Amino acid sequence: MRINCLFFDEYETLDIFGPIEVLSRIEGADLHYISMDGGAVKSRQGFCIQTEAADSAEQGGILVIPGGMGTRKLVNDETFIAELKELCRNSEYVLTICTGSALLAKTGLIDGARATSNKRAFDWVRSVSGDVDWQARARWASDGKYYTASGVSAGIDMALGFISDRYGAEKAEQIAAGIEYVWNRDKDEDPFARE
Amino acid sequence: MRINCLFFDEYETLDIFGPIEVLSRIEGADLHYISMDGGAVKSRQGFCIQTEAADSAEQGGILVIPGGMGTRKLVNDETFIAELKELCRNSEYVLTICTGSALLAKTGLIDGARATSNKRAFDWVRSVSGDVDWQARARWASDGKYYTASGVSAGIDMALGFISDRYGAEKAEQIAAGIEYVWNRDKDEDPFARE
Repeated sequence: MRINCLFFDEYETLDIFGPIEVLSRIEGADLHYISMDGGAVKSRQGFCIQTEAADSAEQGGILVIPGGMGTRKLVNDETFIAELKELCRNSEYVLTICTGSALLAKTGLIDGARATSNKRAFDWVRSVSGDVDWQARARWASDGKYYTASGVSAGIDMALGFISDRYGAEKAEQIAAGIEYVWNRDKDEDPFARE
Repeated sequence: MRINCLFFDEYETLDIFGPIEVLSRIEGADLHYISMDGGAVKSRQGFCIQTEAADSAEQGGILVIPGGMGTRKLVNDETFIAELKELCRNSEYVLTICTGSALLAKTGLIDGARATSNKRAFDWVRSVSGDVDWQARARWASDGKYYTASGVSAGIDMALGFISDRYGAEKAEQIAAGIEYVWNRDKDEDPFARE
C-alpha cells in the first residue's frame, strides 16, 4: 500500500509523524514523503525534511494531510488547493489531521460529508467552508474514503481507527501495543469538544 | 531553554517527534536538531532530516535521545558512546525514549539509578547494562537529571511529566490540552508491563 505523506511549510510536527508511525506498521507499507514542489520543507518546530515532488501519475493509496499554522495561508492559495484536489481524487483514502481538514474542505470534495478538526480552531475551520457537515464532538470522523481527525495527537487515534476499519480491530490493537500506545478507540468520545 | 534533539540513522520516528511537539511548547524553547557528525539522518520510517553537528561547547539545556533499531549497533560503537557521555554530562537534563535508555546506560552515567525502557525490548536493554536499577513496570522513570520513557508513545507522557516536575502540573495540562492529548499522567501505571 502506497502512503503519500504531504508536507508544506509550517505544518505541525506531531500531526503527521504520529500517523506515519502507525501507518508504517501496515504490512507492505510504501511510504513517500511529498510536497507540491519537492525539496526541503520546514515544520512549525523548525526542522527540515526532504520531500519528493507530488506527481499525480504516481498516486493511489493513502494520502495523509497534516494541519498547522501553514494551513492558514494555504486555504487561500488557489494553485495549491487545485493540486491538492487532484491528489485527493487520485487517492484511495485521504486522512487529515487537525486543520488539515480545512485544506480538504476547501477543495469542495467533502461538501455534505461528516468531518472534524481541532476544537480550538473550529470556528476558523467552519469559516473556510460552510458546506461540510462539521462534527463539533468527535475524536475523528469518517465518511467514505475521507478520514478527518481532531487536534494534533488525535491523528494517532484516527490512524488506528482507519487500520481497524480497513484491516480489522486485531491489527489496530497489535500496532497500538507495538508502540505502547493507549488507544482512544471510540471516535465519538471527545474530551476536547467545546460545544 | 536550549533543547538538543539527537538523531542517528534508524531512530524510531514517534520516539522523538512526540517529545519535540510537547517540549516545543515550553516558553522560550530553543530547539536544535543534532547528530554526531551533522548532515542528513534517516529515520526507521525512511525520511531524511537535516541536522547540525553536535558540539559540546554549545551544550546545556535538555538532551533528547530516541530509541529504535539504530541503537542495536550504536551500543557497541565506542566513539559514539564516548561522545554521547560528553553530551549527557554537559546537559542540564537528559530525556530518553524507548531503547534510547540502552545508549544512556552504556555511558555508565546511570549506574545505580532508576530507569526504564520499551517492555518488548527489556531483556536486551537489561543485557546492555546490569548496573542500572531497571524498572520493569513504569510508564517512565526519573532519577535526578535523567528521565527515561517506556516504548515509543510513552515519550509524550514522559515529556509532559518532565514539564510538570520542572514547570508545574498546570503547564503540563495546558500543553496536553493544546495538542488534544489524553495524558497518561501516572508514571507508575504501565499497561504494557510484562513482569
